[in-house]
Amino acid sequence: MPNGAQALMKTLVDAGIEVCFTNPGTSEMHFVAALDLEPRMRAVLALFEGVATGAADGYARMAGKPAATLLHLGCGLGNGLANLHNARKGKVPVLNIVGDHATFHAPFDAQLQSDIETVARNVSPGFVRTSRRTDELCRDAVEAIAAARGLPGQVATLILPADVSWGDGGVPCPPPLPPRPEAADDAVVAAIAQALRSGRRAALLLGGQALREPALLAAARIAAHCGVKLLAEVFPTRLERGAGLPAVERIAYLAELAGVQLANVEHLVLVDAKAPVSFFAYPGKASDLVPPSCTVHTLATPAQDALASIEKLERSLGADGARPALQPGARPGRPRGRLTAEKVCKAVGHLLPENAILIDEAITSGLMLGPFTAGAPRHDLITLTGGAIGQGLPNAVGAAIACPDRPVIALIGDGTAMYTIQSLWTLARERLDVTAIVFNNASYSVLNVELERVGAERIGPKARAQLDLAAPRIDYAQMAQSMGVDGVRATTAEEFVRALERALATPGPHLIDAMVPQSLSGLKRRLLPWLLRSLPGLPPAVARALKRKIAP
Amino acid sequence: MPNGAQALMKTLVDAGIEVCFTNPGTSEMHFVAALDLEPRMRAVLALFEGVATGAADGYARMAGKPAATLLHLGCGLGNGLANLHNARKGKVPVLNIVGDHATFHAPFDAQLQSDIETVARNVSPGFVRTSRRTDELCRDAVEAIAAARGLPGQVATLILPADVSWGDGGVPCPPPLPPRPEAADDAVVAAIAQALRSGRRAALLLGGQALREPALLAAARIAAHCGVKLLAEVFPTRLERGAGLPAVERIAYLAELAGVQLANVEHLVLVDAKAPVSFFAYPGKASDLVPPSCTVHTLATPAQDALASIEKLERSLGADGARPALQPGARPGRPRGRLTAEKVCKAVGHLLPENAILIDEAITSGLMLGPFTAGAPRHDLITLTGGAIGQGLPNAVGAAIACPDRPVIALIGDGTAMYTIQSLWTLARERLDVTAIVFNNASYSVLNVELERVGAERIGPKARAQLDLAAPRIDYAQMAQSMGVDGVRATTAEEFVRALERALATPGPHLIDAMVPQSLSGLKRRLLPWLLRSLPGLPPAVARALKRKIAP
Repeated sequence: MPNGAQALMKTLVDAGIEVCFTNPGTSEMHFVAALDLEPRMRAVLALFEGVATGAADGYARMAGKPAATLLHLGCGLGNGLANLHNARKGKVPVLNIVGDHATFHAPFDAQLQSDIETVARNVSPGFVRTSRRTDELCRDAVEAIAAARGLPGQVATLILPADVSWGDGGVPCPPPLPPRPEAADDAVVAAIAQALRSGRRAALLLGGQALREPALLAAARIAAHCGVKLLAEVFPTRLERGAGLPAVERIAYLAELAGVQLANVEHLVLVDAKAPVSFFAYPGKASDLVPPSCTVHTLATPAQDALASIEKLERSLGADGARPALQPGARPGRPRGRLTAEKVCKAVGHLLPENAILIDEAITSGLMLGPFTAGAPRHDLITLTGGAIGQGLPNAVGAAIACPDRPVIALIGDGTAMYTIQSLWTLARERLDVTAIVFNNASYSVLNVELERVGAERIGPKARAQLDLAAPRIDYAQMAQSMGVDGVRATTAEEFVRALERALATPGPHLIDAMVPQSLSGLKRRLLPWLLRSLPGLPPAVARALKRKIAP
Repeated sequence: MPNGAQALMKTLVDAGIEVCFTNPGTSEMHFVAALDLEPRMRAVLALFEGVATGAADGYARMAGKPAATLLHLGCGLGNGLANLHNARKGKVPVLNIVGDHATFHAPFDAQLQSDIETVARNVSPGFVRTSRRTDELCRDAVEAIAAARGLPGQVATLILPADVSWGDGGVPCPPPLPPRPEAADDAVVAAIAQALRSGRRAALLLGGQALREPALLAAARIAAHCGVKLLAEVFPTRLERGAGLPAVERIAYLAELAGVQLANVEHLVLVDAKAPVSFFAYPGKASDLVPPSCTVHTLATPAQDALASIEKLERSLGADGARPALQPGARPGRPRGRLTAEKVCKAVGHLLPENAILIDEAITSGLMLGPFTAGAPRHDLITLTGGAIGQGLPNAVGAAIACPDRPVIALIGDGTAMYTIQSLWTLARERLDVTAIVFNNASYSVLNVELERVGAERIGPKARAQLDLAAPRIDYAQMAQSMGVDGVRATTAEEFVRALERALATPGPHLIDAMVPQSLSGLKRRLLPWLLRSLPGLPPAVARALKRKIAP
C-alpha cells in the first residue's frame, strides 16, 4: 500500500496535474521521494518560492489547467504569496501543496512552526485545508483540485503535515468532475440586447475567459452589428491578439485616462469582468471609474460560461451573421539610434515571431508595447493581474513549460525584475526558450509619476532616493550570466535589434539588458501625443483637461 | 498642522526609531515624502521586502532597539514574512508599517486589495492594528512601538491606509515608557537554588537576553560554584562569545546529538529559553528532547528580566564571589590546499577581527565554525532563529547599519543565499563593511541529510535533482559584481585566505564565492570525530549508537 505522498502523486497526475513547481524542505521530503514513482509528473525546482508560485500561475494561464506548487511551511508560503495574489486576482487555478510539521510536532512550537492556514486565507479564501489523515489525503486533494479549477479558477491550498505524507495507507482517488458553468439566463440576455438596441452608446467590457479567440470573435460580430465599443479589462490574465483577431481597447491604468475612455458610455456590459475601478486611490478622486450616468449590466459573472453567454447575446441580437472587424497585419519599422523604451517596444513589434507568448511587466517602459504589437502576428499577452510586481519572469518559466513550442518574450521593468530574479536560474536549468528584456532605467519610474499624482508636496532628496536605482546601476547581463543565462547589454537600437534577433534564433534562455533613459518629462511628452492619437473622439474640453493633468 | 505621515515620522524618531528599511509603492508615497522633514530618520531602500524585514531584524539584534520597515500592502508584507518570522522566533523588536489603500478605496476590491491583517497575524500575533484616523495615527504608532519593544520583543504591525497618511491633522505623540520587566520571584529562585545544591547533574539553558556578557558571567560564576553545565539554545538571537568570555555549549541541531547533550541532565533550568525540542519531526522519534527523568525549572521567562533573575540566583547560591571560567584566546592555523567548508571556517577563525559581528547561515557548511572561532577575539554571533532561510544577508545589512564601526562577516549557504540575494545591492548602495562568504557547494546539502533522516526510501534521480544546484552552478562572484559588490571566487585555501584578508582590510562590501565540495559521506566523516571529541563523557553505548546513526 502506498504512503500518503505516493498516493497523492498518483491522484495528482490522474487529475491532469503533471507539473509541480517546487522549493522543498525537510517536511516535504516524502513528497520529493515519491516523484520518481510517477513518470508523468515533472518537478521544476525554483530557488525561491515566488518563482515557483509565479511559474504555476504562468503555466495555468497557458495550459488551461493547474500545476501544483510544493512549498515549505508558512514561511515558504509567505515567500510565494505575492504571485499567488496575482493568480487569485487573475482567477487562475493553482494547487498549493504546503508541507507542514508532523501533526504530533505542532504543539512543541519548533522554530518553523507558524499558523499556515492564516497566511493561506489571504490568497485562498475559497479553499484552505490541512489534511489530517493519510487515508483521507487524496480525497482532500481531489476537493482542492476541484476548487482550484472550478469557474472562476482559484488558488486552493492543501496543507500536508509530514506524518500524513509519510504514513502508510494512502488511497489514490479518481479525478474530480470538470466544472459545468452555465450561460447567462434568458431574461438577462434579453435585457442587455434591448439596451444595446436602444441606440445609446454602449460598450462590452471583456475580461477573463472572454478575451480568448471564440469570445472575441462573437463580441466583434456584436460590435459590427450594433456599433458597440469593445473594451478589455485593464490587466488581462490572457489576451489573444494580433493580426487576424478582433482588436479590443484595454482600459487604461491611469484613472484619468480610463475616465476618458468611459466618459460617453451609457450602457456598460460586463463579460467575465468587473466594473472598472481606479488602481490606487488619490486625494479627492473617485475610486469608481464608471460615470454616474452609465448603466452597468452583467452578462456573465466569472462563475458563468462567458463564451456561451456572449454567443447567446449574439443570437438574440441576430448578430451571428455579422462580419467582425479584424486587426490587419502591420509591423513597425526597425528602430535606429539611441535606445529608448519606446524603441524597445518598436523592435519587439518589428520582430515578434508567430504564435509568441508576450509577457508584459514593463510598467512605464511598456507604454508603447500595445500599439507597436497590435498588428504583429497573433500572440498571447499576459499581464500583471494583481499588481504585485515580480510576476513576469516566473510567468515566463511557467508559460514556456506549458507551451514548449512557442517563443516566450518577457518585458520586465528593472524595479520589478529584482523581486524574483532567481527565475533566471530555473530558465537556464530547464533550458527554456524565453527571451527576457529588462528595461534598465535605474528607477522605480512609475513611483515618480505616483509621487506627484498622490499630491505629495515638497519632494526632497531622501524621498527621491527611494525611487532611484542608479547607484549602483545593476548589470542585468552579468546577473543573467551568473545564473547560466546568455545575457547581453544593448545601448543602441541597432544593438538591441541584433540581440533580439539572435535571442529569437537561438534555443534556450536569453536576457537583454536594455539601457534606456528614465525621464518623467519624456514619459509625459510621449504619453500625451499617443493618447490624443489613440483616443479618437476625445471632446476638446477633456483633451485640454488631460493636457493640464498629464503635461502641465 | 502636519499630515498623518509627517506626524508619524516625528513620533517615530522621538521614540528612538531612526532607521526605516523601505520598499515602498504608491500607497506609501506620503510617508516617503515626509522623510525629508526629519533629518534624524535614515531610510534604507531594499529591492525586495525580505531584505527590508531581515535588515530590520539584524539592526534590532545589534542596536537593541527596533527599526521600522515600510512595506507595500499585503503582497509586500507577504514578501517580507519569512524574515519577520525569524524575528518573531528570536523575540526581536520590529515595527512594520504596511501601507494600504485609502479606507474609502478598500470596498472596490482593486488589484492590490487583500486582507493584510490576516497575513500580519502570522508574525504579529501580539499587535496588528489598522489605523483608521489621522488624528489617532500617532497614538496607534506609540502603542505599536510599546508592543514591539516590550519584553519579549516582538513584531508589531501597523497598517497605514493612504488617506490616514495624507490626511491633515496629524498629532505627534510622546514616546512610550520603556518596559520594566521583573526578576524571578523569591520562591522560584529558592527552589532552583535548592535543586542546584542537590548534587544532581544540572544545567542552565541560556537563551535570549541571557546570552549577553553580564548574564553569561553570572551564569559562569554559578557554574564555577555549583558545577552545573552551561548550555545555550540551539539558534541564539545574539550570542556574545570569544576569548575572555564564558563559553557555552549550544544545543545541537540534530536531535540525536541534542539527546546526547541532555542525556544525563537531571535538573534543567531555563533562563529566557524554551525547553529544547526537535527542529523537525521524524518517524518514530520524540519531538521533546528533554529526558523523562529530567526536571525542568523556569528561572526567567522571556517576559522577565533574565539578568536580574540570574543574579538573584547567583546571590542565593552565594556564587557571586566565584571565579568564572573564561574562554582562553586561541586561533586555528592558516588553512592550506584544496578548499573545503571546514577550511573556510578555519580561515575565519584564523583572521576574525576584534569586535566582529559574525552571522551564521551556513547550514551544513558551518559545522566547524563554532569550534574554530571559540577562542577568537570576542564577537557577536547571530543565527537563524526561525529556520526560514534567507536571513543572513539581510541581517548583515541591518547589523552593519546598527554598528558602523564593527566588521560584519556573514557565512551563507548557497541554497540560502538566493532567497534574498537582492541584499547585495543595498550593501553596495550603503557602502557597508560586510564580507559575505557564500559556501558554493551547488546543493541543498542539508536536505540530503534530511532525506535519509525522515526515512524516505527509494531515492531516485528526480528526487535527488530537487536538492541539486549544480546545473548551472551559480557564479556568486559575478552575481555580486552585477549589483556593485566586489566579488571574487576562491578555489584553494590560499586564495580564500588572501581574499578574506583583502576584504577585511578594504572598506565597503565584499563577497567571496567559496568553491567547496559537497559530500554527504564527507560531512558524516567530519561530523563524527568532531562529535566524539566535543562531547566528552559520552557513554560508550551512546557513542556506538550515534556512530550507527551518523555514519552507518
